[in-house]
Amino acid sequence: MTAVAADSPRRSRGRPGYDLESVLRAAVEVFNERGYDGASMEHLSKRLGIAKSAIYHHVSGKEELLRMALDRALDGWSEAAERARELDAPAIVRLEMLVRGTVAVLETQLPYVTLLLRVRGNTDVERAALARRRSFDKLVASLVEEAERDGDVRADVDPKVTARLLFGMINSIVEWYRSDGRAAAPVPLADAVCAIAFDGLRVRK
Amino acid sequence: MTAVAADSPRRSRGRPGYDLESVLRAAVEVFNERGYDGASMEHLSKRLGIAKSAIYHHVSGKEELLRMALDRALDGWSEAAERARELDAPAIVRLEMLVRGTVAVLETQLPYVTLLLRVRGNTDVERAALARRRSFDKLVASLVEEAERDGDVRADVDPKVTARLLFGMINSIVEWYRSDGRAAAPVPLADAVCAIAFDGLRVRK
Repeated sequence: MTAVAADSPRRSRGRPGYDLESVLRAAVEVFNERGYDGASMEHLSKRLGIAKSAIYHHVSGKEELLRMALDRALDGWSEAAERARELDAPAIVRLEMLVRGTVAVLETQLPYVTLLLRVRGNTDVERAALARRRSFDKLVASLVEEAERDGDVRADVDPKVTARLLFGMINSIVEWYRSDGRAAAPVPLADAVCAIAFDGLRVRK
Repeated sequence: MTAVAADSPRRSRGRPGYDLESVLRAAVEVFNERGYDGASMEHLSKRLGIAKSAIYHHVSGKEELLRMALDRALDGWSEAAERARELDAPAIVRLEMLVRGTVAVLETQLPYVTLLLRVRGNTDVERAALARRRSFDKLVASLVEEAERDGDVRADVDPKVTARLLFGMINSIVEWYRSDGRAAAPVPLADAVCAIAFDGLRVRK
């Protein structure tokens, strides 16, 4: 019994089979804490309490883990973009759908989105992620532009600036949102974002 | 003439007297590029093209430069907060004034604000900056709360969430704003932020 108690909680928690998913989850934690450049396979092996060889059983190395982690966030965004594109509705409705989809990805894949938003483009994998991110940003800007042409979005602000401020607001959520804080907000986060961004925080009288 | 031309542009540009201001400006550049932890006085001396001893003539070291740089952004925020506090007007008017003041600090002190927003609290100087930042955030949240009690700000969103989304939008501007890009926006940035945040991007029909 003493021997079991002496085992570190982290090791025993992780023990029942390290599948790729748990390795990836730990890798993203380590990347977010130390920065990708400052993180090593050594750090990851310590975090998981397993030998590096056991990690190499799943992946070729640090860069593959980064690619898989960034893809997880980007795939979420792509799916949200696809749904918005396919919808047969005015641009402003598709834009709101995209906002809600992006907030949902942020809530469910928080560490992956956090990692993506910190990418600066130092490696091929990071540059590929930035390219996917830019094509997402272009879709957002084109939706805002279309909604402006429809007369549904205010035309006194440049559509690119509107798109940037809107998604800047959404992305800033990673700075404070903690999905385990179950102090259920009075309204779901996506509703709060849409209320403020689409209708403004001022009460109309 | 050949000798002059061979001199690097950086060195010759910096030559006419390194005052504390130029040292600080270069330090913030280096901190933002490499991260504070990854930046050394050696990097700074190379950037300025002067000996480290010439830098120590102005400051005691890297940490003092960090403190001065963070104070520059924080002092800007404090002055904006002070002006908003002193104004004899409803909370929503003071809130809008604070938003405009914060955007102005961002536009005029961009590299300093960028540095501040990346601080994670690894040193005493960083922790002191985070404490000042938190007291600024508290003022924002209390203004939002007061404006909500006045019936001027929508009550269906938690005031803390509103404050975070509003200033998340503002702070995200550091990700893309470049003050030298003189392609004058159709409306000043503070107007764009206030239009979207206070009145929403949707056109009311």
